[in-house]
Amino acid sequence: MKSRIAIIGAGPSGLAQLRAFEAARRAGAEIPDIVCYEKQADYGGLWNYTWRTGLDETGEAVHGSMYRFLWSNGPKECLEFADYSFEEHFGRPIPSYPPRAVLHDYIKGRIAKSGVAAYIRLRHIVRNVSYDETTAKFTVTVKDLEHDTLHAESFDYVVCANGHFSTPNVPWFEGFDNFPGRVLHAHDFRDANEWVGKNILLVGASYSAEDIGIQCHKYGAASVTYSYRTRPMGFDWPAGVEERPLLTKLVGKVAHFKDGTSREVDAVILCTGYQHHFPFLPDHLRLKTRNRLYPGGLYKGIVYTDNPKLIYIGMQDQFYTFNMFDAQAWYARDVMLGRIALPDRAAMEADIAAWTAREEALEDASQMIDFQTEYVRDLLAETDYPNLDVDRIAELFKEWEHHKAEGILTYRDRSYPSVLTGTMAPVHHTPWMEALDDSMETFLAQG
Amino acid sequence: MKSRIAIIGAGPSGLAQLRAFEAARRAGAEIPDIVCYEKQADYGGLWNYTWRTGLDETGEAVHGSMYRFLWSNGPKECLEFADYSFEEHFGRPIPSYPPRAVLHDYIKGRIAKSGVAAYIRLRHIVRNVSYDETTAKFTVTVKDLEHDTLHAESFDYVVCANGHFSTPNVPWFEGFDNFPGRVLHAHDFRDANEWVGKNILLVGASYSAEDIGIQCHKYGAASVTYSYRTRPMGFDWPAGVEERPLLTKLVGKVAHFKDGTSREVDAVILCTGYQHHFPFLPDHLRLKTRNRLYPGGLYKGIVYTDNPKLIYIGMQDQFYTFNMFDAQAWYARDVMLGRIALPDRAAMEADIAAWTAREEALEDASQMIDFQTEYVRDLLAETDYPNLDVDRIAELFKEWEHHKAEGILTYRDRSYPSVLTGTMAPVHHTPWMEALDDSMETFLAQG
Repeated sequence: MKSRIAIIGAGPSGLAQLRAFEAARRAGAEIPDIVCYEKQADYGGLWNYTWRTGLDETGEAVHGSMYRFLWSNGPKECLEFADYSFEEHFGRPIPSYPPRAVLHDYIKGRIAKSGVAAYIRLRHIVRNVSYDETTAKFTVTVKDLEHDTLHAESFDYVVCANGHFSTPNVPWFEGFDNFPGRVLHAHDFRDANEWVGKNILLVGASYSAEDIGIQCHKYGAASVTYSYRTRPMGFDWPAGVEERPLLTKLVGKVAHFKDGTSREVDAVILCTGYQHHFPFLPDHLRLKTRNRLYPGGLYKGIVYTDNPKLIYIGMQDQFYTFNMFDAQAWYARDVMLGRIALPDRAAMEADIAAWTAREEALEDASQMIDFQTEYVRDLLAETDYPNLDVDRIAELFKEWEHHKAEGILTYRDRSYPSVLTGTMAPVHHTPWMEALDDSMETFLAQG
Repeated sequence: MKSRIAIIGAGPSGLAQLRAFEAARRAGAEIPDIVCYEKQADYGGLWNYTWRTGLDETGEAVHGSMYRFLWSNGPKECLEFADYSFEEHFGRPIPSYPPRAVLHDYIKGRIAKSGVAAYIRLRHIVRNVSYDETTAKFTVTVKDLEHDTLHAESFDYVVCANGHFSTPNVPWFEGFDNFPGRVLHAHDFRDANEWVGKNILLVGASYSAEDIGIQCHKYGAASVTYSYRTRPMGFDWPAGVEERPLLTKLVGKVAHFKDGTSREVDAVILCTGYQHHFPFLPDHLRLKTRNRLYPGGLYKGIVYTDNPKLIYIGMQDQFYTFNMFDAQAWYARDVMLGRIALPDRAAMEADIAAWTAREEALEDASQMIDFQTEYVRDLLAETDYPNLDVDRIAELFKEWEHHKAEGILTYRDRSYPSVLTGTMAPVHHTPWMEALDDSMETFLAQG
């Protein structure tokens, strides 16, 4: 009997796993039976946009953290799929920092071309996964959200690819109970127009804070105040945007900070990160990690050492995204196809320990980029994933960091060459700060 | 071996079940082992307030739909526990329409007095319930949210008391995707101050719409527009509050209605009700019902006919609340103690059919009040729950409806007598429209 594989989630990570198997099938391999369960009504993961927040129409947690007017915050050249270039998808070169709809279209185009959507069961949420040592099988219990019914199926492997930017980490601060305005997490942020003319406070100093803050500034917030715990982002902020130390409390609308200063704010947006959340996994199968470049317990960053028939894709903190998920998925595929033999547990743990020790010694973004580049290179060396020039991508990441430091409001006006085709991206027809319409039509219109 | 009972939820319904068993124990009965699982950090159900919306700090759905400045929208005399009067709790009579904190204190006082909090495991969320026909036992799988661990326990009965005003019913309307402001469900409404000076649209014509709308009016919204599907609420609204037919679409900030009119709004609050949601129950144990006075499939409104060892408390649409849950819980207790023998399945179904046929013929609120009064009376007749004058309560409900019709902004200034003590409630020191501080201290201060 053919082995059976369950993939949980049809976002970029789950889709990478489908693509990996499909590539093997097209090359003549016999592949297992595959079922990919996706709770949303469409594949694409976080790249789907919904106006909904909190719970969706079936009472399940809304997966999406996507907001209107989001543009890529890194060059598209750093995430390009090695087997599907932007030029192939759009028929011509496009600028380096596309808005959401354009990246969404790109992801979907690759899937449409490959035909793997047929493996996906939309509106199916995984409720429980158990593992039986005797039969060496997983039982996956799934709810069909459309028909409101549960059923269970048996699998040899489970690929957990449900993402880790969907379950917000929401700290409490004194005064939240009585704050006369909205307190929300970035996960529930949808539209900067809500705060036109308002003074907003963002707690956090990472990508969400940075991007939501300048987004609100771009669309007309009266002021943006960032509050950091450890260190400021330190960009050269425009007038109306500033950084302060950690929020200590709110008294009515007045936010007080650790340096003794205070200011009145109309809303508080908690850009305080996400939790790895697997409500469908029992204790002995559940990855427990903070957001880091090399989570413990995963050999090659993907194989769950406590049960190597369980694979996690995309659970890392990320410079690399789409193409790293591909590298992981191709490797995982070859493990599941028996093409790659896993070492014994001690060897896997020693390998993980070496990587995590290196990770813990990293001192700056440049070293982190090099670290994740090495990680991706290590995976790529073992599979037939198309050639990807990760050294060039690492250079692009470093240029990008440099460009952000030079201008947090202007770095998206830069262009970079594709590492696949070598083509230099054209300059977009409108500077990002003036581009209020983020539709694909407008973005792709010849300037 | 003693039988074991799991109660899911420690809100007013689950607490009623605990009180029912405790009353029997104090009267000398031997009672089963009882475990009550509560996902929140405190008991009290919806009467706990949290500033959180969407997902909580552990990644679970926020249970609460409670908002700041909520005052009881019915006389406290209609919900008084027969075994614990407001006068007993507060040491003196208090006005008829208390704010949230006061009702919360009353609920908690009864529990503190009885000692039943010891049965409650806080921060424990039920993940799964299964039933084994062979052993006639339930297995309840529970997550300890504090320690992030799962475990399972075996029970003879399960009492499902998790409420049905926590999972929003969230319809889509054209234009939500691009609406430049906040779209939320009443479940996520927290503070009317968020909309001071704003024009808000509320979709819905039931209690949530009515109360959130006048709340926003009270705290300074520029205008409140209600949109109804079937019929307007028809109250004598103050200037700045109006009703229109159903929303057809939003174009930017402009809401269009079925009568062809339109108006610009800053926010949309969907007061479109809640779903009965039991993500922890398999198909064959899961109640499927809309919000109605007599849900099908439940004998006496509580015993799940497909498996009479499963009890549902509080799943009805409600005029009666706390004391109806008590009546249900005392009856359920006596079923579980073997004091009440259930008839065979055909008889149970015939009984349900008779009640639901009566329910479907009801024509107005007065008839609905009489119907639920009959239902409560029917339960009370079978148990030793302390005497409760439901005829007098039905009269109070009808007076309340009349007072609401007379003045939607002034009905909370009325007073009613306790059906337990006969004492007339004092008039509150401040008319509701002027009472902006809803704290217990201020409410209880002698006027």
